[in-house]
Amino acid sequence: MSEEPAGGDLARLRRLNARTVVGVLRAEAPLTLTEIAAQAGLSRATVEDVIRELAGRGWIAEAERTAGTVGRPARRFRFRADAGRVLGVEIGTHTVRALVTDLDGRTLGAARSAVDPSTGRRRRLAAVDRVVARCLEKAQVAAAEVYATGVATTGLVDGAGRVMHADSPPEWTGVDLTEHVGRLVGGSVLVDNDSRLAALAERWRGTARFADDMVYVLAGPRCGSALISNGRLLRGFSNAAGEIGALSAVRWSDAPGHLMAWAREHAESPQAEQDPKRVFAAARDGDRSAATAVRRYVRDLAVGTSALVLTLDPQLVVLGGEFSQAADLLVEPLVAELNRTCVRTPEVKASTLGEECAVLGAVRLALDHAEQLPLERSAGL
Amino acid sequence: MSEEPAGGDLARLRRLNARTVVGVLRAEAPLTLTEIAAQAGLSRATVEDVIRELAGRGWIAEAERTAGTVGRPARRFRFRADAGRVLGVEIGTHTVRALVTDLDGRTLGAARSAVDPSTGRRRRLAAVDRVVARCLEKAQVAAAEVYATGVATTGLVDGAGRVMHADSPPEWTGVDLTEHVGRLVGGSVLVDNDSRLAALAERWRGTARFADDMVYVLAGPRCGSALISNGRLLRGFSNAAGEIGALSAVRWSDAPGHLMAWAREHAESPQAEQDPKRVFAAARDGDRSAATAVRRYVRDLAVGTSALVLTLDPQLVVLGGEFSQAADLLVEPLVAELNRTCVRTPEVKASTLGEECAVLGAVRLALDHAEQLPLERSAGL
Repeated sequence: MSEEPAGGDLARLRRLNARTVVGVLRAEAPLTLTEIAAQAGLSRATVEDVIRELAGRGWIAEAERTAGTVGRPARRFRFRADAGRVLGVEIGTHTVRALVTDLDGRTLGAARSAVDPSTGRRRRLAAVDRVVARCLEKAQVAAAEVYATGVATTGLVDGAGRVMHADSPPEWTGVDLTEHVGRLVGGSVLVDNDSRLAALAERWRGTARFADDMVYVLAGPRCGSALISNGRLLRGFSNAAGEIGALSAVRWSDAPGHLMAWAREHAESPQAEQDPKRVFAAARDGDRSAATAVRRYVRDLAVGTSALVLTLDPQLVVLGGEFSQAADLLVEPLVAELNRTCVRTPEVKASTLGEECAVLGAVRLALDHAEQLPLERSAGL
Repeated sequence: MSEEPAGGDLARLRRLNARTVVGVLRAEAPLTLTEIAAQAGLSRATVEDVIRELAGRGWIAEAERTAGTVGRPARRFRFRADAGRVLGVEIGTHTVRALVTDLDGRTLGAARSAVDPSTGRRRRLAAVDRVVARCLEKAQVAAAEVYATGVATTGLVDGAGRVMHADSPPEWTGVDLTEHVGRLVGGSVLVDNDSRLAALAERWRGTARFADDMVYVLAGPRCGSALISNGRLLRGFSNAAGEIGALSAVRWSDAPGHLMAWAREHAESPQAEQDPKRVFAAARDGDRSAATAVRRYVRDLAVGTSALVLTLDPQLVVLGGEFSQAADLLVEPLVAELNRTCVRTPEVKASTLGEECAVLGAVRLALDHAEQLPLERSAGL
């Protein structure tokens, strides 16, 4: 090349370089310029420039110098996780949760509130307002400081953050969550289905950390799924991917019924709450009718799971949702069923993240968005 | 930035720029330097450098000057589609095909040979050798000139080009096609399942040209599928994605049987070939038992198709395979079934590429690979 690249080319190169440097510093302890240059595959001069620019914008800071053995210690730089705040919100049928973190996903504040399943739209949204306010207060973060917010909701969500369809809670179909949550905080609001965000969380901090191809199966009062392929959530053309449970042939609509029916038949009184999870306790205690109900549940759950496994050939199936607490009863027979039907049976693991799974995924969604910001802002560098 | 970027950065920038310029010139008629610079978003000086380098390597040529209205016409450049040759091979149960094209996918030579379904591995591979040799001869291309070869085969193929499993033809499981075809021609050999490559072809030149999310359904004596998401083939963790037909609950294993059974019952003699396609002709002629067989076929085909649609939420379903010639009888009732079961019914279209579909996809696979070559080779530029 005969001359220095012109303006447009340099801007492109600088964006690339800024992304690389931020990536290196996020993944590591504080590094010297020489170390950053080596890991990023960039020249020292370029790294110096990028660091100067990103430091000016608050994304990178000099770490405290530690005394070396000989002479003056080299300057080290670190990513400033406190340069931004993100918010995660989960709106479920029984609970509303919020979580504020820094850019490394470290919790700065959390809040939750139980909600009656019969609560309608207006009062449910009011609970969201209260939980978000409480969470921000605990974290001592002003609403305007929030860089990005992820929202996990039950139901099918369109690309603009409106609930297209939800069987429950009442009046939930049609609610515009981007608009509602956008009035509470600054920054962008991103909304997605709770199973999908639970899958993101499993890949971030849960049991699927190294799986680029993963099927998440929601095992709860309703069966659901979320799919990750090549490291990305599969959303589909109209954001409706993962709805295989709607096909009666794969039996997911029948599966939880085996547990419900047992709980109903074995209720201590007709008024007692029919918690299907009681069947797992009874099965562990050697109750044969409970064991039969669990076996029927797994057999039906396996049909839809096989369909997903055969379609996507994932590395891993993660069993999530409230019934995944009974992994000791479910995983082994589920694997046996998959062995019967699948070309290759992937590993099957239960979620380890528990009830926080969806709100953690909402934080991850917000972080994915926030991570674009330093790069965009330094684009004109 | 205070100084000129260093060596490593420049190499990266140059690769990026070369890719951009090749992309612009492939998509367009011959362009002037100014036009290339505008479309690529690069400086004229950079474009001049890239063009000089790529021309030196044979990938770009100066187009003939056409007289302008005033003064000397500007120089124009074009991508040289004849800078490389690619080969596509299809090895089916009944036919072996080969196709040689230039880098624009223009046919330079084609050959095919019928093969008896009972033919074993050795004789089938010998047919491949003959068809490839004949095709290269027609195209007047030496085996060593082939840049890259795509191979479409029936069966499940592993990532290294070996057939993991094939119900037919005989002795096909275990054959190493990368190795066998690699002995016939120069360059890389890439092997994949015929349904997948048919899907690639539909997206390249067929009915799915604008669909980034697409399900290809192979409707033939065997049902099969291939999936494209975000513009990329879904291959899965062990290259076994798309095998939903193995799950009996989705009825693909039963579906073709309705047509076969009708053909058997209505054979003119027990020795007559039982071509299931005769049922379509009879159904069009108003034969009620034929119409019933077709209706049952579609009903079963729809179960597996619904499972794929609900899982992936594609923009488009393409019906391929030999039965897709009866699209007039199949598409409308298939859509009606999908309407009953799916959250959103995608568009359903029949393949328009006919029997050449898989070999064309094999060419596309080879082209995708070949298109990396000018960039790799100019990396040290």
